[in-house]
Amino acid sequence: MDKNAFIKDFIIDGTSNYLRNVSIDNVIFGYHEKELKVLLQKPQDMSKWHLQGGYIKRSESIFEAAKRIAREQTGLEDLFLKQFKAFGTPQRTKDPYFTPQLLSRITGQKIEEDHWLFDYFVTIGFYTLTEYSRVKPVSGFYMDECQWWDIHDLPPLLFDHELVIDEALKALRMRCYNYPIGLELLPEKFTLPEFRVLYETILEERLDSRNFEKKLKRIGIIKRLNEKKDIGPHRAPYLYTFNKELYLKALDEGLALVS
Amino acid sequence: MDKNAFIKDFIIDGTSNYLRNVSIDNVIFGYHEKELKVLLQKPQDMSKWHLQGGYIKRSESIFEAAKRIAREQTGLEDLFLKQFKAFGTPQRTKDPYFTPQLLSRITGQKIEEDHWLFDYFVTIGFYTLTEYSRVKPVSGFYMDECQWWDIHDLPPLLFDHELVIDEALKALRMRCYNYPIGLELLPEKFTLPEFRVLYETILEERLDSRNFEKKLKRIGIIKRLNEKKDIGPHRAPYLYTFNKELYLKALDEGLALVS
Repeated sequence: MDKNAFIKDFIIDGTSNYLRNVSIDNVIFGYHEKELKVLLQKPQDMSKWHLQGGYIKRSESIFEAAKRIAREQTGLEDLFLKQFKAFGTPQRTKDPYFTPQLLSRITGQKIEEDHWLFDYFVTIGFYTLTEYSRVKPVSGFYMDECQWWDIHDLPPLLFDHELVIDEALKALRMRCYNYPIGLELLPEKFTLPEFRVLYETILEERLDSRNFEKKLKRIGIIKRLNEKKDIGPHRAPYLYTFNKELYLKALDEGLALVS
Repeated sequence: MDKNAFIKDFIIDGTSNYLRNVSIDNVIFGYHEKELKVLLQKPQDMSKWHLQGGYIKRSESIFEAAKRIAREQTGLEDLFLKQFKAFGTPQRTKDPYFTPQLLSRITGQKIEEDHWLFDYFVTIGFYTLTEYSRVKPVSGFYMDECQWWDIHDLPPLLFDHELVIDEALKALRMRCYNYPIGLELLPEKFTLPEFRVLYETILEERLDSRNFEKKLKRIGIIKRLNEKKDIGPHRAPYLYTFNKELYLKALDEGLALVS
């Protein structure tokens, strides 16, 4: 979105285009080689980063809004977005780094304190977990920078976005206790340790490899290939792939792979 | 709330008192003797029932709003309210049973179609599960009737409230798979079958009584008393009570009692 479009969309016609007092924030987690990261953005002229967020058009559902915002800012159409929590306190968007003066300076328009963008916003949080090299962060007029941050090494964050990320992590972990993950995060063929490390990275918990692998095999959501991965002298573990039918069934019915 | 207060609060000063486009709905489940019920209300002049709901004051958080609404309508201060999901589509509150004409007739004021109460509302759903004899439903000016309904035998419901109840049930069940329930739902002293039937009623699932009881004893969140309950000739099962310390620990850390 360029500057003029931004000004027309949010500053001039904002309240006829969008709902008031309610917004969307997407927590986009990326998994890649034993690391869990989160996608953050930073507007020009601001020293704090924030989540990918936006507003709800009067013609769309909250889920459609979350998908549109994700698509506009990551270039991805098919992210698995999961709603996890709404955040709403009168103080949550009061931040000395987000002011009418800032927005006036950026847009070149006179923005008053009672502008709708500075009102009390309840935000609906969605999260997704993706293989992070799939995402192509898009910078827009209002978004100078957009990059991945390690979840253990976050920059200063706007509003209550640290809390929002914490709660998204809790929801992601809770999901891992009740549903399978891995498809679309691991390569087509993977080793059992690679699969376990994915769980360990997200849960931040060491798993008993024997128990984990036994359970995995019993449940049958992965199948062993007649193929090994050469990872060093005398080290060639079998490769596995997902049994998609059973995986999707477990996704539907729930699965306690780790407890 | 009487009629004049209602008119002033919602009709005249509505948008200065409350947030726009975002509301609260509480799904109040009641458990009592093997039955799971939900508390519903019906405004005068309307043939559909709805959940206990309301709006968010500019001075309060969404959680405080949910608690206030619950308190005003059930007389209970200490309900464990758990946020579970937000619902938002442009159509969700379009209902031929909720119209400006209805509200005009009830209030005696001329209410137009563009009145804020008929706008697109995203609603934040909270649920609670309580021993249902503890709740004292309060009827207000706008609430002619307020009563418990069996979750399998619901009356016609306003808006998307059937979906909201369904999703609350899913969240309640998911919670039962991950955390203990029972304290405040069962009497101080209870038998093992009474405890199991509580789980079975909520999960709608027959549990293996031997496995369930074995797990319960191993985990230690309940303790056997030196006392039996006389329930018939030759039938006197032991009574149990909660080990509150371990129960609260499990509430904090999670507990997979049923899987």
